[in-house]
Amino acid sequence: MSEHQNPPATDAETERNARHKARMERKKAVVDASIAAATDKRGLLLINTGNGKGKSSAAFGVLARAIGHGLKVGVVQFVKGRSDTGEEAFFRRQPEVSWHVMGDGFTWDTQDRTADTASAQAGWAQARVFLDDPEIGLVVLDELNIALKYGYLDVNQVIADIESRPEMQHVIVTGRAAPEALIEAADTVTDMGVVKHAFKAGIAAQAGVEF
Amino acid sequence: MSEHQNPPATDAETERNARHKARMERKKAVVDASIAAATDKRGLLLINTGNGKGKSSAAFGVLARAIGHGLKVGVVQFVKGRSDTGEEAFFRRQPEVSWHVMGDGFTWDTQDRTADTASAQAGWAQARVFLDDPEIGLVVLDELNIALKYGYLDVNQVIADIESRPEMQHVIVTGRAAPEALIEAADTVTDMGVVKHAFKAGIAAQAGVEF
Repeated sequence: MSEHQNPPATDAETERNARHKARMERKKAVVDASIAAATDKRGLLLINTGNGKGKSSAAFGVLARAIGHGLKVGVVQFVKGRSDTGEEAFFRRQPEVSWHVMGDGFTWDTQDRTADTASAQAGWAQARVFLDDPEIGLVVLDELNIALKYGYLDVNQVIADIESRPEMQHVIVTGRAAPEALIEAADTVTDMGVVKHAFKAGIAAQAGVEF
Repeated sequence: MSEHQNPPATDAETERNARHKARMERKKAVVDASIAAATDKRGLLLINTGNGKGKSSAAFGVLARAIGHGLKVGVVQFVKGRSDTGEEAFFRRQPEVSWHVMGDGFTWDTQDRTADTASAQAGWAQARVFLDDPEIGLVVLDELNIALKYGYLDVNQVIADIESRPEMQHVIVTGRAAPEALIEAADTVTDMGVVKHAFKAGIAAQAGVEF
């Protein structure tokens, strides 16, 4: 795109650059005011929900970010779809990460509500260990929303346990259909919406992208 | 939540478990049919857009996933908001990752369209090096949508370069306001929508969560 390099300083170009600068100066004033107004610092509860791709991967991206700042991280996976995920292989290598997989598989694979409930309960027991430990800076509760959706865990008890965590500890909850009470308790909630998905176009889940 | 452990096998409970099993059997049949229909494997173009949190962090989560499967990854950041991000600190330590920051800052900080254009052009030159290299399994083009939105790069040229990449190479593009032509060219597109955001509630961006 060499035609973009060293743009000729025509009058039109000069005026466009001036308009851009003025627009960006106005934008910076707005951004700076927002930053000045945002001064509170404390542990956050983040929720990644919705039907689109990126709920768990966004949590794992924040996990990498947290390690980069020297935080220790605890992970509990409540639904284990497969045993060969790249994120588990990679993050288990990191000394800052404690990774626990409690789920026995997708609910439609196990088809066993009693076993899934027991597995979710065991997962929550591990989550509480992290939520009681001020040395853990970030707790990732992957697919917790699924365990709540099926009633394997009590949402009020889960919220109470999360809210009694150390003040500076961050928590990320992922999974479709986050319960309203959990959304109300959260600081940041993102709904990952599907615009299009390769799987629906007949493309298989591929290592490194989908798992 | 001990009342959930070892649930008593009352008639109601037994019936509820049976209904759950039947529902999951039906769900599994649907899921298995979808999986059987999805057989194609090739490099994907994924886009994370929208105004919510998680566009870049989802890309970095997939980056970790890709490393876990032994892929080499190339990253180009087109907008560099700050120089102390945890993701850069962490992933620069990984031998599988080649990390390039080309942006000079947010557009409202630089306020200089000519400099931002030159910087985006340099970023795209690096992106093309990755897009020409079959040894690179995943290319992350962070905030590319911003460079396209402001016209620093030509979207048709960008799409042409992405579409001429090695067959099995995956590409993730992030940033608000993905152009329609790029969305049409993509395999998977997720719109990260804001349900709520801590920043708007007066909480500062915090290390390990927001950067």
